[in-house]
Amino acid sequence: MTDLLPDLPTFPARPAPVSADRFREVFRRHPAGVVVITVDAGRGPAGFTATSLTSLSLDPPLVSFAVSATSSSWPHVRDASTAVVNFLGAEHELLARQFAARGIDRFAPPTRWRRLADGAPVLEEAPAWLRVRLEQRVTAGDHRIVVARVEESWLARSHRPLVHHDGRYHALPPRP
Amino acid sequence: MTDLLPDLPTFPARPAPVSADRFREVFRRHPAGVVVITVDAGRGPAGFTATSLTSLSLDPPLVSFAVSATSSSWPHVRDASTAVVNFLGAEHELLARQFAARGIDRFAPPTRWRRLADGAPVLEEAPAWLRVRLEQRVTAGDHRIVVARVEESWLARSHRPLVHHDGRYHALPPRP
Repeated sequence: MTDLLPDLPTFPARPAPVSADRFREVFRRHPAGVVVITVDAGRGPAGFTATSLTSLSLDPPLVSFAVSATSSSWPHVRDASTAVVNFLGAEHELLARQFAARGIDRFAPPTRWRRLADGAPVLEEAPAWLRVRLEQRVTAGDHRIVVARVEESWLARSHRPLVHHDGRYHALPPRP
Repeated sequence: MTDLLPDLPTFPARPAPVSADRFREVFRRHPAGVVVITVDAGRGPAGFTATSLTSLSLDPPLVSFAVSATSSSWPHVRDASTAVVNFLGAEHELLARQFAARGIDRFAPPTRWRRLADGAPVLEEAPAWLRVRLEQRVTAGDHRIVVARVEESWLARSHRPLVHHDGRYHALPPRP
């Protein structure tokens, strides 16, 4: 494959043991779609920006996402029975930043939100969302993996998704 | 925010219950970085393309990925104690397809691979990789979530990552 891949790396003689800096550096280069998880455990709306959403199982329809156990969001996710996964489009970088910011009311304007029939908050600007039932919470180091069953979905329109990569938000190029 | 977001969707009066088609449709629009997980449980090298890799915990350094319980890879991942997460660059679409294809020897040429000191297979073309210890396997519907501790890492060079989105492989635009 030398003709196809002229820029092959030299294979490492000595890989590095992993440090926090190295770990972060490797994952800076790993792109991910961006969602906001919203929830209300009976103490008002809570939510956070996540790049860990994964499509897990088709039958039953399950997704997973991760939450830091030391985050302000975790007690809400721990205690709630349902949540909404709000997908973000390329135009929603401000919303992603608002739901990652500390010390502010993330649901204050310019955030626009309402409640679904079960009380779960949903972002009005999300081009697609899933209402999920929170089924499993798995301890993994300083985070929790949440497994959730998709019960309802809404897809408004085709959208260019928001991607997080290299510490920044990006849009994928338009469809050719 | 009407001035910033002129193209707001109409809010749904009646969201759809989730079907397999709808579930797939929503996740087609959710982009993800692409890796190949390689493993050897004592029965020869095995590996598969994954878009589920998530950076989970910094202390200890943990990642997670998902495997279909009905896939040919699952018995290998179930029985192995270590694995390698091979990150793919924008030039590695063929490699991603080879490790997603059925009924072929995925380690046959053009794949180039070798073994690490502990015997785990690694792809020589990967611009970065992590050697991980497989610590937890969590049942979630028809898939298993694997939680793995990062023990060693290698980062050859800055690379444009491969992204999976809308049923195709893409490259992110070059850094501005």
